[in-house]
Amino acid sequence: LQSVAIVGVGLIGGSFALALRRAGFGGEIWGVSSALTIEKALEKQIIDRGLTLEAAARADLVFLATPIGTILESLPHLQRCAGPNTLITDAGSTKRQIAERARGLRFLGGHPMAGKETSGLEQAEPGLFDGRPWILTPEGPVPDWADQLADLLTGIGARVHWMSPPEHDRWVAACSHLPQLTSTALALALSRFQDAPSVPSGPGLRDMLRLAESPWDLWRDILATNADEVKPMLDRCIEELGILRETLEKPDLANSWEEARRTAVSLRYRNS
Amino acid sequence: LQSVAIVGVGLIGGSFALALRRAGFGGEIWGVSSALTIEKALEKQIIDRGLTLEAAARADLVFLATPIGTILESLPHLQRCAGPNTLITDAGSTKRQIAERARGLRFLGGHPMAGKETSGLEQAEPGLFDGRPWILTPEGPVPDWADQLADLLTGIGARVHWMSPPEHDRWVAACSHLPQLTSTALALALSRFQDAPSVPSGPGLRDMLRLAESPWDLWRDILATNADEVKPMLDRCIEELGILRETLEKPDLANSWEEARRTAVSLRYRNS
Repeated sequence: LQSVAIVGVGLIGGSFALALRRAGFGGEIWGVSSALTIEKALEKQIIDRGLTLEAAARADLVFLATPIGTILESLPHLQRCAGPNTLITDAGSTKRQIAERARGLRFLGGHPMAGKETSGLEQAEPGLFDGRPWILTPEGPVPDWADQLADLLTGIGARVHWMSPPEHDRWVAACSHLPQLTSTALALALSRFQDAPSVPSGPGLRDMLRLAESPWDLWRDILATNADEVKPMLDRCIEELGILRETLEKPDLANSWEEARRTAVSLRYRNS
Repeated sequence: LQSVAIVGVGLIGGSFALALRRAGFGGEIWGVSSALTIEKALEKQIIDRGLTLEAAARADLVFLATPIGTILESLPHLQRCAGPNTLITDAGSTKRQIAERARGLRFLGGHPMAGKETSGLEQAEPGLFDGRPWILTPEGPVPDWADQLADLLTGIGARVHWMSPPEHDRWVAACSHLPQLTSTALALALSRFQDAPSVPSGPGLRDMLRLAESPWDLWRDILATNADEVKPMLDRCIEELGILRETLEKPDLANSWEEARRTAVSLRYRNS
């Protein structure tokens, strides 16, 4: 690779550039972003040049690191102007709609499972992906250059995993989107309790409400592009809450409780 | 106070004894617990004597630090054998049923909001209550010795708050029991997903499932003695999840999202 174009030079895109440099990448890094961001990225020497999407589409590798909605808007442009040998990947948090719109391109979707509580180029750092999973989501036959991309990602510190786009979207509906919505629903259920006695409560409540602070800007596109997978998950959670409600004073609750504990412990071990 | 009897010398009871000593309490500390626990507590010099409940009921202060079910069983005994000047308090996590059964005694219920992931005397430490809320829950007129107890609790490091038993039970239903059941329901909803791709997921899921690991032994009595307050909370949360489900792809979701964020932020500030 002689040139990498990063579309969306924020936390993820900026960290990708810094991580490439740290890994010894000697080619050019181009940026596509707002004028203000490009200025900052040039100043910090995170990118070498600021370009339009059309000009950047001639790079050897294009990395789409904008919100999902903007990725979906960029793909038709790339269908028209990508170079014949340009490899394209992305960092969108849902994968089916992106994969569909990328058909015909030399595209292999990705999802780096890394982030911070605040976004933006200021937060970018070369170690953001160190030890974090980076899911690659080939649709149909794996492209011949997939290993090249996987090696690049391993080289910047990430741990590459493989899933199809539908597998990915079902998995994130379970392990990311449902927990998010559960936290949001809990906050809404408690919102009528803000007049309650102002006694500080414990770390349990704080843990359960942390996700509810996630910005809407991030979640709008995620939920809009994965609603069909998220709805059955929500149904399941609603059903389980209903069962807990009905068995609150019954001996059956002990069994549910133990099943929940086993699942929580097993997912914790898987996480570590 | 010349003598304090601790009924249930575990994490809370043992820490109470250690905190009393740290605060300079020079009287006798008696323990009522299983033979094995009493042996350990004597060995560690956490208590001065092991007694039966009947004998311990002559202490100046009796502190009931067993699970709620056992507190409820101890109170009728105390109705028969407590000394005429014996003050009684407890550490139960729900307060209405305990307060009812304690009528006629010189009783003032309490709820120390402190704990650890593992229980038992081995975990006891003098600083367990430092800076933590300790709710006192007078029923009807506040007893003349309430300030004496509050001063004692302040002296061992706790921050005393006051609520009636019904206020308390409604408040913990919201800020403790509902978050717990939400985490348990989430774990149950995910339990059918344990065959999912074994990719480590992020800290968000880990936070949301931490409470689901709480032991059933602790929660059985809590839920059984507060079911009537917990059920409407569960209904509210189920309703909010349903609304999220219906608005997943609609612009309305932005408003709910912001309301949830505001609540989460406001409860976080209240917690700190």
